[in-house]
Amino acid sequence: MSASDDSLNKPSRRLFLGAAGGLAGAAGLAPAMAQLAPSHPQIAPAEAEPFYGAHQAGITTPMQESLYFAAFDLAATNRDELVTLLQDWTKAAARLTVGLAAAPGAQDEQAPGLDSGEAAGLSPSRLTLTFGFGPDLFDNRYGLAGRRPAALADLPRFAGEQLVDGQCGGAVCIQACANDPQVAFHAVRQLGRIAYGAATLKWVQNGYSTASKTPGTPRNLLGFKDGTMNPTAATAGPVVWAGDEGPAWMNGGSYMVARRIRIALEHWDRMKIAFQERTIGRQKISGAPLGGRAEFETPDFQAVDANGDYVIPDTAHVRLAAPANNDGAQILRRSYSYNNGANFVAERWPPWHQGIEYDSGLFFQAYQRDPRTGFVKLFDRMSKIDALNQFTTHVGSAIFACPPGVQPGEFIGQRLFEA
Amino acid sequence: MSASDDSLNKPSRRLFLGAAGGLAGAAGLAPAMAQLAPSHPQIAPAEAEPFYGAHQAGITTPMQESLYFAAFDLAATNRDELVTLLQDWTKAAARLTVGLAAAPGAQDEQAPGLDSGEAAGLSPSRLTLTFGFGPDLFDNRYGLAGRRPAALADLPRFAGEQLVDGQCGGAVCIQACANDPQVAFHAVRQLGRIAYGAATLKWVQNGYSTASKTPGTPRNLLGFKDGTMNPTAATAGPVVWAGDEGPAWMNGGSYMVARRIRIALEHWDRMKIAFQERTIGRQKISGAPLGGRAEFETPDFQAVDANGDYVIPDTAHVRLAAPANNDGAQILRRSYSYNNGANFVAERWPPWHQGIEYDSGLFFQAYQRDPRTGFVKLFDRMSKIDALNQFTTHVGSAIFACPPGVQPGEFIGQRLFEA
Repeated sequence: MSASDDSLNKPSRRLFLGAAGGLAGAAGLAPAMAQLAPSHPQIAPAEAEPFYGAHQAGITTPMQESLYFAAFDLAATNRDELVTLLQDWTKAAARLTVGLAAAPGAQDEQAPGLDSGEAAGLSPSRLTLTFGFGPDLFDNRYGLAGRRPAALADLPRFAGEQLVDGQCGGAVCIQACANDPQVAFHAVRQLGRIAYGAATLKWVQNGYSTASKTPGTPRNLLGFKDGTMNPTAATAGPVVWAGDEGPAWMNGGSYMVARRIRIALEHWDRMKIAFQERTIGRQKISGAPLGGRAEFETPDFQAVDANGDYVIPDTAHVRLAAPANNDGAQILRRSYSYNNGANFVAERWPPWHQGIEYDSGLFFQAYQRDPRTGFVKLFDRMSKIDALNQFTTHVGSAIFACPPGVQPGEFIGQRLFEA
Repeated sequence: MSASDDSLNKPSRRLFLGAAGGLAGAAGLAPAMAQLAPSHPQIAPAEAEPFYGAHQAGITTPMQESLYFAAFDLAATNRDELVTLLQDWTKAAARLTVGLAAAPGAQDEQAPGLDSGEAAGLSPSRLTLTFGFGPDLFDNRYGLAGRRPAALADLPRFAGEQLVDGQCGGAVCIQACANDPQVAFHAVRQLGRIAYGAATLKWVQNGYSTASKTPGTPRNLLGFKDGTMNPTAATAGPVVWAGDEGPAWMNGGSYMVARRIRIALEHWDRMKIAFQERTIGRQKISGAPLGGRAEFETPDFQAVDANGDYVIPDTAHVRLAAPANNDGAQILRRSYSYNNGANFVAERWPPWHQGIEYDSGLFFQAYQRDPRTGFVKLFDRMSKIDALNQFTTHVGSAIFACPPGVQPGEFIGQRLFEA
């Protein structure tokens, strides 16, 4: 089932299958065109993230500036078609992440493009492509109904969520992150073309982060630092990577929960700073826990004021999210802010929609080795009593099993299909 | 009517007016908080664009990476309220473009934020804020009905356009461009807060460009270079700046036409490269005009092939857009690609919506000294016969008069309100 690495040098069949639209090309008029590949004679190592490895890139990889996330339904009618899709995606992803066009070979002027071309001349921009398998992939069409991991459990209904059709679920996902939004979208666009006939786009979300631009913890649209409690590169391993507690094909993989969280920015902006800080449980500028002085200080959840009330309130976001208050439960946050335009109607009920303007918020991705003891455990209580819920509404939701990384010649998720 | 520059040192009243929501703050608990201003002890000149000048920044300024564009309706009930809004916006814009918080002064913990805070610690990121006045500003509420420039003429209905409610028009606009999407949105968010009671958000659009990342002409989502024929910094002046042919208050200003152009990327991607090149009239990789060899070569619109057909077809985009074929009519393009998510329904009719997936395209802004002899003249014919129309649909539209720049102490559009 392993594909030879040599296959990277063969043109992708799928890219030649698009209809030419019945519109006459002009043979002989257009000059011969070289391959529409970016030209990077010397790619600086910092501009390309490794694609191959024990784990997929884009999980513990330091966050890039831009996200383009896409979820797909599967149209493949049998296992072979699904495997072909994953093989083709893997080959293209290996090329795209080093800044090459999606498919190799010289462009035939009388055929659709091997690549749509808008990333030509751009740096790889630290592009990572992370693939995940949703519950719908474990389907009798593919003989996989019995191989769904227990950890890929359907998410329960959470208090207050107002999920929107067309922003949820999916059988397969691609998370493209790069330091350039054009590079991130370009990658998904090429992978989407390769998938024609085998997978259909279901929903997408883009976003941005300043994580790679600021030395410290980046701020989200609440104006607060986001991710202070995140595990570091050194400590994330046991939090995110599945081990031998589940199926062997997920060993070294991770489970992603994605939530599109709309924030009522206009409501938030009207709050007193002191109230915002009590909502989060941290100081706005420094990020220090209330009662503390420095961002990375351990919050003192027992400290009380002169009235005997907790300095960090019972309903403060940081208290409810802390591993110390959740039997050690922990996740890796990988969150991008988003702007989806203007939308003057709030999804939530009761409606705090006075003055709501922006369809903006946080595209929140949590990675963990088991969502049942990670995101679900943490968010069940938070969804009920977190003071921040007055300003946030979860409107999109999905869960995916992200298989381990691949070596050259392998394809994403290969072990799922073996014996 | 001129505001003293000293007013920059007074706290903005409006920022203190937001309701604190009736929710109890916690006096005395939160530590004193310093002003929520970004800390830039040494701002590199390249990171801040000048705000003051003869012309507004953001027009001939080299394009930044990110756009956040917002159009507003006016709620101000009289001229004084409108003037106050423009004064407040000008003061805040001068601060934001150098990386300061929207309003000066120390933050009162028991008041809503002087600034929402998410740009704290970030570079000014070459932020420019460009203000424009739409037809709805010239209203009897403000005694301006007789002062509308003839050049600010309502756009005619163009062939094929499928304008969407909620993506068109506006009495005032703010174009925020920066090398960081968080900085661009932050600026509009602060200006939107300042406008509460005086202006209400109508529609927004964000976008991105690689113009500042590549030495040559950037590519748009068609995969072709976009802007080869654009006037340069040296030649743009007579194209974009209004002179004494119109009202004195617009002398040194410019007229902006904004069009949200959705592109059927999935349809375009299925076309043969040779067909794409004949549609545009240029080679895809090099950007050279068909029949030519180099991007900036003057297209030979008379050249014919062995059959006597034009090498650059009659319906090629470049032929129809060229000043040489339009009595010299010229515009300055300032275009950002956009991704508004997935949308499987096309606005256009007849429907080329087979396989349409992305709500993506080009947020096209044309600047010129008179749209009647600029965009309208150029696009009238293009809207009827440009081969590219098979793939593009204009779904948003607006026109604005962007007044000249300001000096310290003045406010945007001040001369419109004088004498």
